[in-house]
Amino acid sequence: GVKFDPKEHQHQRYNPLTDRWVLVSAHRMTRPWAGQKESVSEQQVVRSDPQNPLCPGNTRANGQVNPDYESTFVFENDFPALQPDAPDPPQGSDGDSLFQSKAARGKCQVMCFHPWSDITLPLMRQDEVIKVIDKWAELVEELGATYPWVQIFENKGATMGCSNPHPHCQVWASSFLPNEAVVSDRSQKAYYQQHQQQLLLRYAEQEANRQERVVVQSSDWLAVVPYWATWPYQTMLLPRRRHILRLTDLTPEERRDLADVMRRLLTKYDNLFQVSFPYSMGWHGAPTGPHLSGGVDHWQLHAHYYPPLLRSASVRKFMVGYEMLAQEQRDLTPEQAAERLRNVPDEHYRNRKK
Amino acid sequence: GVKFDPKEHQHQRYNPLTDRWVLVSAHRMTRPWAGQKESVSEQQVVRSDPQNPLCPGNTRANGQVNPDYESTFVFENDFPALQPDAPDPPQGSDGDSLFQSKAARGKCQVMCFHPWSDITLPLMRQDEVIKVIDKWAELVEELGATYPWVQIFENKGATMGCSNPHPHCQVWASSFLPNEAVVSDRSQKAYYQQHQQQLLLRYAEQEANRQERVVVQSSDWLAVVPYWATWPYQTMLLPRRRHILRLTDLTPEERRDLADVMRRLLTKYDNLFQVSFPYSMGWHGAPTGPHLSGGVDHWQLHAHYYPPLLRSASVRKFMVGYEMLAQEQRDLTPEQAAERLRNVPDEHYRNRKK
Ligand SMILES: O=P(O)(O)O[C@H]1O[C@H](CO)[C@@H](O)[C@H](O)[C@H]1O
Ligand SMILES: O=P(O)(O)O[C@H]1O[C@H](CO)[C@@H](O)[C@H](O)[C@H]1O
Repeated sequence: GVKFDPKEHQHQRYNPLTDRWVLVSAHRMTRPWAGQKESVSEQQVVRSDPQNPLCPGNTRANGQVNPDYESTFVFENDFPALQPDAPDPPQGSDGDSLFQSKAARGKCQVMCFHPWSDITLPLMRQDEVIKVIDKWAELVEELGATYPWVQIFENKGATMGCSNPHPHCQVWASSFLPNEAVVSDRSQKAYYQQHQQQLLLRYAEQEANRQERVVVQSSDWLAVVPYWATWPYQTMLLPRRRHILRLTDLTPEERRDLADVMRRLLTKYDNLFQVSFPYSMGWHGAPTGPHLSGGVDHWQLHAHYYPPLLRSASVRKFMVGYEMLAQEQRDLTPEQAAERLRNVPDEHYRNRKK
Repeated sequence: GVKFDPKEHQHQRYNPLTDRWVLVSAHRMTRPWAGQKESVSEQQVVRSDPQNPLCPGNTRANGQVNPDYESTFVFENDFPALQPDAPDPPQGSDGDSLFQSKAARGKCQVMCFHPWSDITLPLMRQDEVIKVIDKWAELVEELGATYPWVQIFENKGATMGCSNPHPHCQVWASSFLPNEAVVSDRSQKAYYQQHQQQLLLRYAEQEANRQERVVVQSSDWLAVVPYWATWPYQTMLLPRRRHILRLTDLTPEERRDLADVMRRLLTKYDNLFQVSFPYSMGWHGAPTGPHLSGGVDHWQLHAHYYPPLLRSASVRKFMVGYEMLAQEQRDLTPEQAAERLRNVPDEHYRNRKK
């Protein structure tokens, strides 16, 4: 028979965190594309726009005035999906397991990374990115004191539904473990019980040995295109040296190193198609609140980056149709994606142009 | 305390098919939108374009010439994600449960609904839509003779990555049960074992009694915004009268009735924002191939419609950030969505304009 070649022959790969398979059909990259293109306006974002509610000194929708902040700035989301005081839905009134509801309470905050609207994380200085990491850790500490889950996430770019170019992320703390946390908790726990080792610590070790999916590495961190990546250039950011539950547990050295690895990874993303790379990213660490007292040793801190672009700055992967109804499918192998990212220059294209 | 109002107070709802929760935060609809808008060109699609590979008589990428077809037309996808003869990936060579792969084989077909490019299902005649349903059933019969899963799905509209305006769907048959099928199978089986009744047959009964989430109904079919819908105007199409495993089991009356209900549902979709409504849709029925011999009585045939639009023809819901990293979130209640759809006229806006 024909010898198996992952770049030529479709196959499935298993995601041990989600217990789902992805269909890898790398030969599909050859098909022509006549569909929707994203608009690639490297729109000239101005440093400070008096209309932008995220800029220092500006007035927000609710009438509050932002301070003249000089590094990060956190405020309550003016249109929060989670509020601290929603009443419980009536229980069991429906008397049917097909109509179940439960309470949701929480807090939604917005965090600006920098006073300027025309800068992004890869173009910020290392000490500025460290301040972002420190603030993330502070928010996990503060909100995690009571809430079991604190989701830090960044939507970047219009393609990802981000409505404001100012560099910022969101932090949603909830009274419940969201779906993705429940599933990841279950998988990491089962692995830990079976192997007496953290799934993601073992995985980082293995990827560091194999190198073929590594994009950026340092003494403490590894950025890899996971073996089971679904988005074309999806990556995972992992501590490689020790068991770390949460952002709050990072040492100053690990934060410095993380700032550096993030800047290098995001520079590679931007350089790939010479565009400010859109993505959704977020941190997953051990649950907090009641879980601070233990029972979560199977967790290892990590971040997921989900960028949608596939072939160019304007042609994205659509996770539709078969993906929504049946199974995620990808058009190049994770190894090909990692190689392309490794091969782009380390210097940001914006700095080179100068 | 304050009385719970689902339109005012965020809460979670349980999806018994996927075993996941959705966060319902209906008060969020009040926030302003400054983000990406979809382009709403009701582009004048011509009835027959010599460059369009889906039109009768035209030549496709591989040099094959389409027949002068007069109703439906099926051909092999020229860039298939699944091919019948891919070799197996090497087994266990990685010696680690974190690097698992398995074989994927299958067939990808494209099915045109009609010879004209400038028509859509809601604007087709009932007898023309019945021909589509009959052809779907034929393909399930044919491909399902050997393959365990035959996924019929339609991506409609540029927003959904559809690169061709000609009315068509795709049919991907696979040598494996895809993720969504595995999960749905597990949930329906567990319910059946516990209640000795099909989950979705019971659900249809309940929704028919309650009516508040029903959009369109007939003697044999029900289109509802599910209690656990994640997309703003998501619907599920369900047989309401009897246990039906697959499209192949539908009687001629049930097909006629289905054609009618589909046309009514899709007309409501188009009328909501006076635009040809984008969506991904697909059929889920009992597994086939080896499963034709039994053990799948817990299954009930149904279709899912996942449309992305939220506020208008140009403002969609982005399932990004919190949704990708944590949990799906919706901005209006399923009951509100159903009511809006019920209240739009039954006559298609294109016909009224004439
Ligand atoms: O085959 P098409 O329509 O060109 O491609 C579209 O549908 C496929 C199946 O849902 C997806 O994998 C692609 O990402 C999407 O662009
Ligand atoms: O809050 P934003 O950035 O306006 O809104 C964006 O992110 C949210 C959280 O991921 C999503 O629920 C919205 O669909 C998206 O448009």
